[in-house]
Amino acid sequence: MLLKFSTWSEIETYLGKRQDVFIPIGATEQHGPFGLIGTDAICAEGIATAVGERDGVLVAPSIQVGMSLHHMKFPGSMSLTPQSLIGLTLEWVDSLAAHGFNQFHFVNGHGGNIATLGAAFSEVYLKHPNVRCLTTSWYELPPLQAATAQYFGDGEGYHGTPSELSVSFFLYPEQRRETQPLDDSPLVDDQLYSAADFRRCYPDGRIGANQHLADPKIGEKLFGIAVDAVLERHRKWTELK
Amino acid sequence: MLLKFSTWSEIETYLGKRQDVFIPIGATEQHGPFGLIGTDAICAEGIATAVGERDGVLVAPSIQVGMSLHHMKFPGSMSLTPQSLIGLTLEWVDSLAAHGFNQFHFVNGHGGNIATLGAAFSEVYLKHPNVRCLTTSWYELPPLQAATAQYFGDGEGYHGTPSELSVSFFLYPEQRRETQPLDDSPLVDDQLYSAADFRRCYPDGRIGANQHLADPKIGEKLFGIAVDAVLERHRKWTELK
Amino acid sequence: MLLKFSTWSEIETYLGKRQDVFIPIGATEQHGPFGLIGTDAICAEGIATAVGERDGVLVAPSIQVGMSLHHMKFPGSMSLTPQSLIGLTLEWVDSLAAHGFNQFHFVNGHGGNIATLGAAFSEVYLKHPNVRCLTTSWYELPPLQAATAQYFGDGEGYHGTPSELSVSFFLYPEQRRETQPLDDSPLVDDQLYSAADFRRCYPDGRIGANQHLADPKIGEKLFGIAVDAVLERHRKWTELK
Amino acid sequence: MLLKFSTWSEIETYLGKRQDVFIPIGATEQHGPFGLIGTDAICAEGIATAVGERDGVLVAPSIQVGMSLHHMKFPGSMSLTPQSLIGLTLEWVDSLAAHGFNQFHFVNGHGGNIATLGAAFSEVYLKHPNVRCLTTSWYELPPLQAATAQYFGDGEGYHGTPSELSVSFFLYPEQRRETQPLDDSPLVDDQLYSAADFRRCYPDGRIGANQHLADPKIGEKLFGIAVDAVLERHRKWTELK
Amino acid sequence: MLLKFSTWSEIETYLGKRQDVFIPIGATEQHGPFGLIGTDAICAEGIATAVGERDGVLVAPSIQVGMSLHHMKFPGSMSLTPQSLIGLTLEWVDSLAAHGFNQFHFVNGHGGNIATLGAAFSEVYLKHPNVRCLTTSWYELPPLQAATAQYFGDGEGYHGTPSELSVSFFLYPEQRRETQPLDDSPLVDDQLYSAADFRRCYPDGRIGANQHLADPKIGEKLFGIAVDAVLERHRKWTELK
Amino acid sequence: MLLKFSTWSEIETYLGKRQDVFIPIGATEQHGPFGLIGTDAICAEGIATAVGERDGVLVAPSIQVGMSLHHMKFPGSMSLTPQSLIGLTLEWVDSLAAHGFNQFHFVNGHGGNIATLGAAFSEVYLKHPNVRCLTTSWYELPPLQAATAQYFGDGEGYHGTPSELSVSFFLYPEQRRETQPLDDSPLVDDQLYSAADFRRCYPDGRIGANQHLADPKIGEKLFGIAVDAVLERHRKWTELK
Repeated sequence: MLLKFSTWSEIETYLGKRQDVFIPIGATEQHGPFGLIGTDAICAEGIATAVGERDGVLVAPSIQVGMSLHHMKFPGSMSLTPQSLIGLTLEWVDSLAAHGFNQFHFVNGHGGNIATLGAAFSEVYLKHPNVRCLTTSWYELPPLQAATAQYFGDGEGYHGTPSELSVSFFLYPEQRRETQPLDDSPLVDDQLYSAADFRRCYPDGRIGANQHLADPKIGEKLFGIAVDAVLERHRKWTELK
Repeated sequence: MLLKFSTWSEIETYLGKRQDVFIPIGATEQHGPFGLIGTDAICAEGIATAVGERDGVLVAPSIQVGMSLHHMKFPGSMSLTPQSLIGLTLEWVDSLAAHGFNQFHFVNGHGGNIATLGAAFSEVYLKHPNVRCLTTSWYELPPLQAATAQYFGDGEGYHGTPSELSVSFFLYPEQRRETQPLDDSPLVDDQLYSAADFRRCYPDGRIGANQHLADPKIGEKLFGIAVDAVLERHRKWTELK
Repeated sequence: MLLKFSTWSEIETYLGKRQDVFIPIGATEQHGPFGLIGTDAICAEGIATAVGERDGVLVAPSIQVGMSLHHMKFPGSMSLTPQSLIGLTLEWVDSLAAHGFNQFHFVNGHGGNIATLGAAFSEVYLKHPNVRCLTTSWYELPPLQAATAQYFGDGEGYHGTPSELSVSFFLYPEQRRETQPLDDSPLVDDQLYSAADFRRCYPDGRIGANQHLADPKIGEKLFGIAVDAVLERHRKWTELK
Repeated sequence: MLLKFSTWSEIETYLGKRQDVFIPIGATEQHGPFGLIGTDAICAEGIATAVGERDGVLVAPSIQVGMSLHHMKFPGSMSLTPQSLIGLTLEWVDSLAAHGFNQFHFVNGHGGNIATLGAAFSEVYLKHPNVRCLTTSWYELPPLQAATAQYFGDGEGYHGTPSELSVSFFLYPEQRRETQPLDDSPLVDDQLYSAADFRRCYPDGRIGANQHLADPKIGEKLFGIAVDAVLERHRKWTELK
Repeated sequence: MLLKFSTWSEIETYLGKRQDVFIPIGATEQHGPFGLIGTDAICAEGIATAVGERDGVLVAPSIQVGMSLHHMKFPGSMSLTPQSLIGLTLEWVDSLAAHGFNQFHFVNGHGGNIATLGAAFSEVYLKHPNVRCLTTSWYELPPLQAATAQYFGDGEGYHGTPSELSVSFFLYPEQRRETQPLDDSPLVDDQLYSAADFRRCYPDGRIGANQHLADPKIGEKLFGIAVDAVLERHRKWTELK
Repeated sequence: MLLKFSTWSEIETYLGKRQDVFIPIGATEQHGPFGLIGTDAICAEGIATAVGERDGVLVAPSIQVGMSLHHMKFPGSMSLTPQSLIGLTLEWVDSLAAHGFNQFHFVNGHGGNIATLGAAFSEVYLKHPNVRCLTTSWYELPPLQAATAQYFGDGEGYHGTPSELSVSFFLYPEQRRETQPLDDSPLVDDQLYSAADFRRCYPDGRIGANQHLADPKIGEKLFGIAVDAVLERHRKWTELK
């Protein structure tokens, strides 16, 4: 159930029954030579939408531009600053909390958002003591980690990974790019610094990822695993309260 | 050409040829008893995407939550404050201007965004003297106004109009709601004040709109007219410089 | 009745009877070769003061520096950024709303303020649901447009116009500048971009205005028309509620 | 020489010769039973204007609403918060520094502005290392203190003083209020806290001031002393550099 | 080498040789019935100071109040909001980066700071592309985790832990509180929400910690392990560049 | 009684009896050739702590980095901007006022903080009408001024003074620097402008101070005088209410 495809009275009815909502959050940033700039938003939105359908949970619009400052030396990347992303998160929650929503489950597709989301949640709780927020980065869920290790091994890497490319190519087959084998892109440091640093260390944008392994069929399987895992996590969380 | 479906090297190539980009901006707000909460974003995104395809112009992600504070007494409405929407607009332009984009054409689906966008542009020019911005509210273009008057006459109204519902139902036929005749919803004042004022004056959310006139077939025609008109306006504007 | 010339107990008495107030808002910006930098503030303050006298409406201090970023390449121009002008507007309303004022009529002398004021009002209503704001740009009122067309025709132009110069020279005759005929200053584009763009397109600051037509006697007539029209608009608006 | 009564080319000429400017700053706040709400702005603007005429120094528009939060329990008082007043001061200096002004002399009529102006200047210097700012609170100048002691003795008090009322009644004789003897209004504490505290301690708004001593003739003398003293201070300061 | 105990010329000399600096960051928040409110700052400052002495690395003043909004229902707790802590972190780095420092190692004593610090670093890199930041939460270092498990097992818990109490009592023996056995304080949820939620779930402030196990002698050992581990991590990091 | 060395239940007990608290505020800035960068924080913290012990008043953590923008051309100086220091002050007060504290006595060691603290207090009172704040700059207290004049005469100067160096060397004897006679450092102007201006006028950082006069034994005496004077001032202030 998508908010954008609902009427206000349908939302009124929904709120009479439950007060949880998914907010997909991705990024608009380079994903290496063969990955789509929208990969993170595509995956987060796709997974949240499917989970929402399975259990009838409302899905708000996606935050499509996230915290990607470190990718800004690659054309097409967009980013909010952390301070702005905190403010935006707070106002989205303000809006929905004003109607009675009180459990916000952010389905996240981008590691760079995590710290800022965490900071934002503390601002949320200060303003809305009865609200609870949760971030689930789909690719970090244990069943996903297991499947990714099995399919791609060390080729998975850390950015522009074959797993996220596979899911995006499964969801939008016509957008699949023809991958080719490339040299390795080894991890230089486990910290990320400025955008200039990033481009110098990882000139084509990948970090340790063998994009030639990307495959929509594997994407379909990973997608199914992700939907199951997010759904289970959501059920546990909403029952907890 | 959608940014989210591009790779960074494709954007690099695009920038070698042209530096204009569309940014669709809508709203996530009540649209009366039969209109979708996402109507404004759906229309703006749909039109901008089609225009982008016609002339090969890049289309950035849509701003789906706009300035809708006056709709906040209807469940499901979301809004940024004007100050935040200015900040978000500025950072989106910052991001793309950093790569060399310099003409930003905002295809707008929501009247409540116009003042704030205008304010934002002045902040943009202060920071980026070489950037130019343009807002086109598709429903205000003369050919649209003419067609709307012909199809809906006084039933068009001012919010939750049959024209925007028609376009949204044309673009997403499966989301079409079964409209029914309703009492008139006369315009109380030509100014809008607080959300409480709005709900008191317009209890079901419409302003003067006869939603029962909404028709996907008319939507298709309006959509075609809008795409032509936005395209023509974009061509003139980009040639001007 | 001017706020600055009142005592606090006089305002207490006023509030026992009515809660409306005028706030004149102008600009401090170049007005071409013969126009005063304070033209917009002079006109707005003069008209609001006269209207206030006619109906006993309180007039707050003028906002003398408005949103004039696009004029900043001409010496002497001053500007707030839109974000700051929103903040200032909000705090002026906060101050007066704390005492019980609830209808704020901004008499505006500068087109560049309009978008920002509109954005500010949305912030006002969020914080003060019972407050109502109205902007009246005196030069846009239909009787003014008619009179201006009659007196100046195409020579009126868009910035540094003979009508505003005439009103300012009528109000401060000793400040009248000796105008001279100048070359035409044709409109380049109907949008305004950065300050550098503005100066390049309009090197002496005028936009399409024949300042040699400015005449204090015509100014007197325009002033009278403006006072009548603002007064009528104010009466209708305050009765509406 | 007033900025509002200048043309941009006259300012260009001025800047070719000197780069100093006065900015009057007052307040819009209660001044006890017989004092005008605009007293502080009236005095600061009147003195700065006269000094400007004497030495041909430019005078910018007045900041009419200052930091008066502690007066907000009296109808008609207006205030910016310190953070906003810092921002406004910075943008006024930004505007004029962009044209080449580099010595900003704030002629101040209100004690409540002093701390905030001091804070603002540090922000100014961070952004504009070549700019210098000076605050002169006219009523604190030694010759004024001496004259005030002579004319009013202990009756001068601390707020709504006979000296400032006298100056304002001299400048605007038609605004003179008929004063009457009142009970003493003794100083409770030498610190000011919240607006509620202020109203509780000083119910009619005065602090220790005998407003019945106010006299436009004395006002004329004080005004003359102030103009001389500010002029002398300005000359020394501008020669120093 | 402590910044506060240095002269400016000693810092000039230091910068001629190296550009790294430690910034201890703790918290001022409740630490259960027997823990000191300053525990996190005490540990972070103590460890950073000792490491600084070992390798001659400069240590800046400690950030003593961190992000502790969730502890605010316990008297004495203090907190910055995330937005403010980001701003403060940015200005501390601005200050030191202006002198040439470019490696900022934050020695952290409080889990609640981590997300906000991460967000702050992205703002830092945007402004200072040549700066690198690192957070080390001493209690999360593998040798610490191993030692803690050995000494305290499950009694370690998550907040107000015997390990941090032990270190603080070792560093300030005179501040040791007489602990007593208490009921278990089981972990309710692995997420933290509002301050009211926290107090309801953990009424005496501890999370799963057996404070009666705290022992200054164990504190001494943990402290030694921490100093060694932070030192090693710092050496590796500074050599990396 | 130091907040950092208290438990939350001890603070709860304290609040049952009294609601006043000291907040020491210093600076981290150059203090000339022989003065420690932490001088202002060292003195303020030392004095506040001793006063707190004498009367059992709680002492919060010190604000160690203050408003020192004008010292930023000397290595090691750190500063918050005024806007940030206002925000930090407000959040510290917010935190403690939430627990019931209502009298905040800032013991200040740095003149550059005074204006900004004053501005901050107005923001505090707006948000917390029942809170009262007081700044005491220890070195400005009359008994200190008298003692300083006696010990150092004109050699005291205005920055990096022998009195503050003496107190810091008394409190931390091992940090005493070996002073030497230096040329005079005359006062150039009684205003301070930008950091570049400061360094140009006062190349070694002192203003008019003969640091060779610094003496820990005199420091001990000054410290005792300061503790007595602050204590007396605090008692009077807390009784006043």
